[in-house]
Amino acid sequence: MASINDIGVAAAINIVTAIAFLLAFAILRIQPVNDRVYFPKWYLKGLRTSSIQTGGFGSKFINLDFRSYVRFLNWMPEALKMPEPELVHHAGLDSVVYLRIYLLGLKIFFPIACVAFTAMVPVNWTNKGLDRLKHTNISYSDIDKLSLSNIPNGSGRFWVHLCMAYAITFWTCFMLKREYKNIALMRLQFLANDERRPNQFTVLVRNIPTDPHESVCELVEHFFKVNHPDHYLTYQAVHDSTKLSELVQKRKQMQNLLDYNINKHMRTQSKRPIIKMGFLGCCGEEVDGIKYYTSMVESLTREISEEKQRLRTGTKSIVPAAFVSFKSRWGAAVCAQTEQSRDPTEWLTEWAAEPRDIYYDNLALPYVDLKIRRIIVAIAYFFLTFFFMIPIAFVQSLANIEGIEKAFPFLKPLIEVKFLKSIIQGFLPGIALKIFLMFLPRILMEMSKFEGFVSTSSLERRAASRFYMFQFINVFLGSIVTGTAFQQLNRFLNQSANDIPKTIGVSIPMKATFFITYIMVDGWAGVAGEILRLKPLIIYHLKNSFLVRTENDRDEATDAGTIGFNTSEPQIQLYFLLGLVYAAVSPILLPFIILFFALAYVVYRHQVINVYNQKYESAGKFWPDVHRRVVTALIVSQLLLMGLLSTKGAHKSTPFLLVLPVLTIGFHMHCKCRYLPAFVTYSLQATMIKDTLERTREPNLNLKAFFRNAYAHPEFRVGEDLELEMAVEKPDKTPELVSTKRGSWRNTPLPSSKHSCPYSP
Amino acid sequence: MASINDIGVAAAINIVTAIAFLLAFAILRIQPVNDRVYFPKWYLKGLRTSSIQTGGFGSKFINLDFRSYVRFLNWMPEALKMPEPELVHHAGLDSVVYLRIYLLGLKIFFPIACVAFTAMVPVNWTNKGLDRLKHTNISYSDIDKLSLSNIPNGSGRFWVHLCMAYAITFWTCFMLKREYKNIALMRLQFLANDERRPNQFTVLVRNIPTDPHESVCELVEHFFKVNHPDHYLTYQAVHDSTKLSELVQKRKQMQNLLDYNINKHMRTQSKRPIIKMGFLGCCGEEVDGIKYYTSMVESLTREISEEKQRLRTGTKSIVPAAFVSFKSRWGAAVCAQTEQSRDPTEWLTEWAAEPRDIYYDNLALPYVDLKIRRIIVAIAYFFLTFFFMIPIAFVQSLANIEGIEKAFPFLKPLIEVKFLKSIIQGFLPGIALKIFLMFLPRILMEMSKFEGFVSTSSLERRAASRFYMFQFINVFLGSIVTGTAFQQLNRFLNQSANDIPKTIGVSIPMKATFFITYIMVDGWAGVAGEILRLKPLIIYHLKNSFLVRTENDRDEATDAGTIGFNTSEPQIQLYFLLGLVYAAVSPILLPFIILFFALAYVVYRHQVINVYNQKYESAGKFWPDVHRRVVTALIVSQLLLMGLLSTKGAHKSTPFLLVLPVLTIGFHMHCKCRYLPAFVTYSLQATMIKDTLERTREPNLNLKAFFRNAYAHPEFRVGEDLELEMAVEKPDKTPELVSTKRGSWRNTPLPSSKHSCPYSP
Repeated sequence: MASINDIGVAAAINIVTAIAFLLAFAILRIQPVNDRVYFPKWYLKGLRTSSIQTGGFGSKFINLDFRSYVRFLNWMPEALKMPEPELVHHAGLDSVVYLRIYLLGLKIFFPIACVAFTAMVPVNWTNKGLDRLKHTNISYSDIDKLSLSNIPNGSGRFWVHLCMAYAITFWTCFMLKREYKNIALMRLQFLANDERRPNQFTVLVRNIPTDPHESVCELVEHFFKVNHPDHYLTYQAVHDSTKLSELVQKRKQMQNLLDYNINKHMRTQSKRPIIKMGFLGCCGEEVDGIKYYTSMVESLTREISEEKQRLRTGTKSIVPAAFVSFKSRWGAAVCAQTEQSRDPTEWLTEWAAEPRDIYYDNLALPYVDLKIRRIIVAIAYFFLTFFFMIPIAFVQSLANIEGIEKAFPFLKPLIEVKFLKSIIQGFLPGIALKIFLMFLPRILMEMSKFEGFVSTSSLERRAASRFYMFQFINVFLGSIVTGTAFQQLNRFLNQSANDIPKTIGVSIPMKATFFITYIMVDGWAGVAGEILRLKPLIIYHLKNSFLVRTENDRDEATDAGTIGFNTSEPQIQLYFLLGLVYAAVSPILLPFIILFFALAYVVYRHQVINVYNQKYESAGKFWPDVHRRVVTALIVSQLLLMGLLSTKGAHKSTPFLLVLPVLTIGFHMHCKCRYLPAFVTYSLQATMIKDTLERTREPNLNLKAFFRNAYAHPEFRVGEDLELEMAVEKPDKTPELVSTKRGSWRNTPLPSSKHSCPYSP
Repeated sequence: MASINDIGVAAAINIVTAIAFLLAFAILRIQPVNDRVYFPKWYLKGLRTSSIQTGGFGSKFINLDFRSYVRFLNWMPEALKMPEPELVHHAGLDSVVYLRIYLLGLKIFFPIACVAFTAMVPVNWTNKGLDRLKHTNISYSDIDKLSLSNIPNGSGRFWVHLCMAYAITFWTCFMLKREYKNIALMRLQFLANDERRPNQFTVLVRNIPTDPHESVCELVEHFFKVNHPDHYLTYQAVHDSTKLSELVQKRKQMQNLLDYNINKHMRTQSKRPIIKMGFLGCCGEEVDGIKYYTSMVESLTREISEEKQRLRTGTKSIVPAAFVSFKSRWGAAVCAQTEQSRDPTEWLTEWAAEPRDIYYDNLALPYVDLKIRRIIVAIAYFFLTFFFMIPIAFVQSLANIEGIEKAFPFLKPLIEVKFLKSIIQGFLPGIALKIFLMFLPRILMEMSKFEGFVSTSSLERRAASRFYMFQFINVFLGSIVTGTAFQQLNRFLNQSANDIPKTIGVSIPMKATFFITYIMVDGWAGVAGEILRLKPLIIYHLKNSFLVRTENDRDEATDAGTIGFNTSEPQIQLYFLLGLVYAAVSPILLPFIILFFALAYVVYRHQVINVYNQKYESAGKFWPDVHRRVVTALIVSQLLLMGLLSTKGAHKSTPFLLVLPVLTIGFHMHCKCRYLPAFVTYSLQATMIKDTLERTREPNLNLKAFFRNAYAHPEFRVGEDLELEMAVEKPDKTPELVSTKRGSWRNTPLPSSKHSCPYSP
C-alpha cells in the first residue's frame, strides 16, 4: 500500500504539473499570435476581428508588455465575473447548466467534508483496529488510520458512520432536488423567451409506410392534411445523402492538400511542388502537386453537383422520413406528443431537434433496422466493456509495488530507489488508465451513431451514458476488485459470485490512496491541460503555417471546440461516485475532490466564456441524465457501505442502512414525476402563450417562407455554402468569376424552393 | 413425500367432487325456479322474462321432463357453440379476451406436454439417480422417478432438459406474440366499430389548481377555451358525494329491512312485526317494525334530497377535477395524450373511462395525497405479504406427514390409518391455503381503492397485480421454501441469503406432488364450484322468500355477478407459472394443468354466455398485464431451472441457460414497443376516421345534449333512479302517486341541465 509519503510525492508532482500548465497557459494566452486559440469564441461571435494590441511595445505576434505577465492569474476572477443571465445569453443554456454540475459537486461535498472531518475523522483516528494487523502480512499506511478500517470489528462506533450515511443521503438528495427544480425553471424560462426557431414548429416523422400508389412526399402530405387539417403547414423530405457527404468530405481533404501545395509553391517560387502517387506518397510516379489536386478538386466538385442534381430531381433517394412543419407551436406540440397511426411502428413522431443539431445520416433508418442495430450495439458494448478489463487489470496490478516485488524479485533493487518508487506508485496507474480511456469516447460515439440516433445532442447523451457505465465497471469496480487481486485473490476465488458486493465493500478503504492519485492525475492535471489547449494550439499553428491564405481560411482554422459532454460529464460523475462512496469510509478523499470541482469550475467557466462554441442548444436537456447518475452513485455508495459494515461485524447498525436505498429510489421517482416532464414535453399552455403573442405581434407572418430549407441537408442549404463551393471550383481565379458562376447556376431549371422534393408544395 | 397412491386417492376424491358439483349443476339448472340464478344474463338483456316451460309435465318450479335429465351434460357443447364475433356482441370484448387466457394456456401447454412426455419422461425414467438415496433419510416417491431428480449428478442427459427449456421458451413466446397481436387487432376493431359513447369525447382532468379569483368551474372553462379553442365543448364538474353515497347505501339497507317486515306481515296478517331497538335486535324497547323502518326510509330520503340540493346549489362541494368533453374524438385524443400545463402536477389529463366504470369517490384526491397514499399502500402491502407467510408456513408444514410424525410421535397411530393419511395429504394444504386466500381479494381491492384509482377497471387490474404478486410469494415461493423447512431447515439456515434461488431450484422437484394436489383442489373443484354458483343460488332464494314483492324486486335479487378479474386472473397466472416451472422438471404436472384449462374454458364460456353481466367494458385493456405476467413466469422458470441444474452438477449445460432470460426480456421489450400502444393510446388517425364518418352521417348532431349528465354521479342521473326514489318514499301508496311526485319535483327551480355545476354552460 502507498504510504502517506508516496501520496505526498504524487501530490507534489501533480501540483507542480498543474501549476506548470497554468503558468504556460497564462503566458501563452497573452501572446497575440495565440489569440485565436484562447479566445476563439469572441472571433466567432464577431466581437473581435484581430488580436488585441498590448500597449506601445506591442508587436503583432509576441506580447512585450511585461506588466501583463505579472497579472498572469487574473483570468480566474475574470472567468467568475460574468453573471449567469449574461452567460446564458453569451454561451447558451447548455453551457450554463453544464457549469452547474461542478457547482453541484461543490455544494454537495463541501458541507459533507466539513462534517466528516469534524465528526468522523476523530472517531476513526482514536482506534487501534489496524495495529492488530501489524503482524499479519496485510500492509496498511497512515492514511488508512483516518478511515473506517481503523475501527475494530463489532465496535459501537459504527453508529457514527451510519448517521453519517443518513446525513450524506439527505443532504445530497436535498441539493439534487433544489438543483433539478432550478434547472427545470431555467429551461422553461429559456424556452419561453427563446426567439422563433423552426424546431418549435416542426416534428420529425419517421417510419413512413411504403405505399405502392403514392410516393413518400404525397403520402406525408395526404396523411397530415387529413389528420391535422387545421394545423399542418408544410414538410421537408429527407434525402439519402450518404454519398454526397462522402464526396464533400473527400473534396475538403483534397482542398487542404491543394492549399498546402499552393502555399509551399508561393514560398519557394522557384520549383513546382512534386508529389509521388504510390504508397503514402513515398514512391511511384511523380506529378505536379498543384495540378493534380486542382484536377481532383474540380472533378469532385463536378461529382458533387451531379449528385445534388440527382437528389433534387429523383424521388428514389427520398427516405421514409420527413420534417413536418405546422402553422403553430400548438399544432407541432400536439403532433409530437400523440400517437398518429394505429400501427405503433409507423408514422412515429417526435420533436425535431434544431437544424444544426440534426444528424442526417440516421434519418433514413427503418424501424426494424433500428431494433436490430440496438441489439448489435448492446452486444458490442457488452464485449467492449468486459474485454477491456483485461489490460486494465494488468496495469492495475503493476501499480501495487509490493505485488511486483513478490512476483519479480529481481526488479527489487530498481524499484526500491525511493524516487522511482514514488513515481511508479503515483503516476503509472492513473496515466495508463487515462491513455486507455482516451480512445474510448470516439468508439462509443461511433456506436451511438450506428445505433441510429438522429440528433447530435442525443448521440452525445447516449455516448455519455455508455462512457459512465464503462468507467463505473472498469475504472471503479475494476480498480477495486482487480487491483486487490494480488492481495485477496485466494479469498476471492473461494467465495461465491453472490458475495461480490461484500468483497467490493471490504476493498474500498484499501483503494483510497489509489483513487487519490487518480483524482490528481486525471482531475487536476487533466483540467489544467484542458485550459492549456495544447492540441488545438499546435494544430492551429500548423494550419496557420501551411494552409491559411485568406482571413476566411484563418477563421476556418480557428477550432473553438465544444464542452464535449460525452467525455467530460462521465468524468465528473466518476468523481461524484468516488466522493459519495468514500465520504463515509475514508473522508481523506474529499478535499482532493473538492479541489478538483473548484478548479474545474473556474477553468470551464473561462473556457465557456472565451473558447467553446457549442454546436447545438438543447436547453439543458441532459440534466435528467446527470441527476440520475448522481442518484445511482448514491445508491451504490449505500450498498457498498452496507457490504463493508456487514463484514466489520456491525450487525446492529447495518440493517438500518437498508432503509436508505429504498428512500433514495423513492426520492428519484418523486423527482422523475415532478421535474422530468419539463425536459421531455412541451406543454400546450406554453405553446399557446407563445403562439398568441406571436399572432398579435406579427399578424401577417409568412411562416412557409420561414421554413423553406430550414431542415434541408447542410449541403443543400443554398447560398450558405455556395460561395465556398464556387471558390473551390476555380481556386486560381479571382472572386469576380465566382459571382458569374453562381448566376449561371441560378438559371438551372429547378428553383431552389423545390430542392427538397419535387412534390413539395 | 406423497406416493403415487396418495395422489391417486386425492385425484379420485377431487374428481368425484368435481363430478358431483357438475351433476348438481346439471340438475339445478334445468329447474325453472333456478332460472334466474343460472341464466341471469338473458333476463338482464331482456331476452327472457319468465322461465322456460318444459313440456306438458312442466310445473312452474320443478322440471318434471325426465328427458332433460338424460341430456344433463349438453350445456358443454352449447357453451362452445356460440361463435366469437357473436360472443363479443353478446358479452363484450372483455369477456372474450378473458376466455382467451384459458385458450392460451391450452395452446401453450398441450404441445409442450406432448413433447415432454415423448422426449423427456423416458430420459428421466431410465435412470437410477434416486436409488442411491434409498439408504439416506430423504424420502422420495415413484412420481419423482419421472422428474429431473432421477438423473444422477453431472449426467450428460441434462442437455435434453436444456433443449426442452429452449423449446418451451420459444413456443411460449411464439404463442404469446401471436395472441398479443390478435388481441390488439380485436381491440382496435372493436373500438373502431363501437357506437358513439361519451367516453370517446371526454377527458378526465385532475389536479385543477386553486385560484383565489375563480371557482373551479370558471377555471376549467377558461383554461380549455384558451388552450383548446377549436375543440373544447363542455365540461361536467365533480362533486364530493361521499356523504350522499353513504346515505343512499343506508337507505338501501333500511329499505331491505322494511321489505322483509312487510312481507312477514303480509304472511302473518294477524300481528304487526315487532323489533327490539337494543344490541343486535335482541334486547331493548320494542317498536312496530314496519312503522319504524318506514320512518327511517322516509327521513333518509329527505336527507338525500337535501344533500342533493346542497350539492347542486353550493360550489363548496366541487372538487378540483372535471370531465371535459370535446367537439370531436380528435380533440379529446389530443387533450388526453398531451401535457397541458408547465407544472407537471397540475391539469393532469387522461382518457375518461366509461361513465359506469368511473369510481367517483376517488376523483377528488389531490396530487400530493395520491403520492402519500401510494406509499402507505406499498408499505401495508409489504407487511401483508410477508406477515401472511407465518400461518401459511404453519399449515404447509402440517401437510408433510413424515414431518408431523417426527414432531409429534404420539399422533403416529392416528395418521397411519391409510385412508386418513391420504385425505390429510391430499386435501389439507390446498384447502387451508384456499380459505386463507378467500378473504384476500377484498382486502387488496380496498387497498387499491384507498390508493386512489378512478375507474373500477383500473382498480381490478391493480388488485389483480397485487394478488398475483401475493400468490407468487406466498403460495409459490412460500410452499416451496417453507414447505421443505422440515426437511431442509438445517441446510437452509447454514446458507447465505444469496443462495436462495439455488435452494428454491433444488426444492422444486420435491414439491411437484403438493402442487398437483393444489391444482386439483383449487383448480378442478374450484371451477366446478364456480358453475354451481352455490352462494348466489342460496342468496337468490333467500331474497326471493323474504324481500321480493314485485317483478322489479325479483330483477334486483338476480345477482348475475362478473368474471371477477381481480381474483380469477391471478389464479390462472399461478397455473401458468406452475406449468412453465414444472414443464422441464416434472412434466407429470402438465396433464393436470391442461385439464384445468380445458374445464375452466368450457365453464367460463358457459358462464359468460348465460350468467355474468360485466359492470364495464374496457375493450381488453388488461391483456398487457396478462402478457407481462406470463413472461415473468417464463423468466422465473428459467432462473429456477438454472439454479436446479447448477446444483445437479450440469456445469457444461447450465451456462447456455443464461441466454434464455436475456432473450425473453428482449422479446418482452419488443412486444411492449409493438403492441402496448394499442392498449394505452388512441391514434389520431383512428379518431379522425370516426369523426369524419360521424360528421358525414349526422351533420346536425347536438353533442352537447349527448353529454348532458353523462358523467354526473349515479345518484344525480335524473330519471334513472327517480322512480325508485319516489316509490320508496311512500311504499304503501299506489304507483299513480309516483308520477305526480315526479311532476312536482320537476318544478323545482333548478333545471336538470344545471345539476353538475351552477356555472356549467
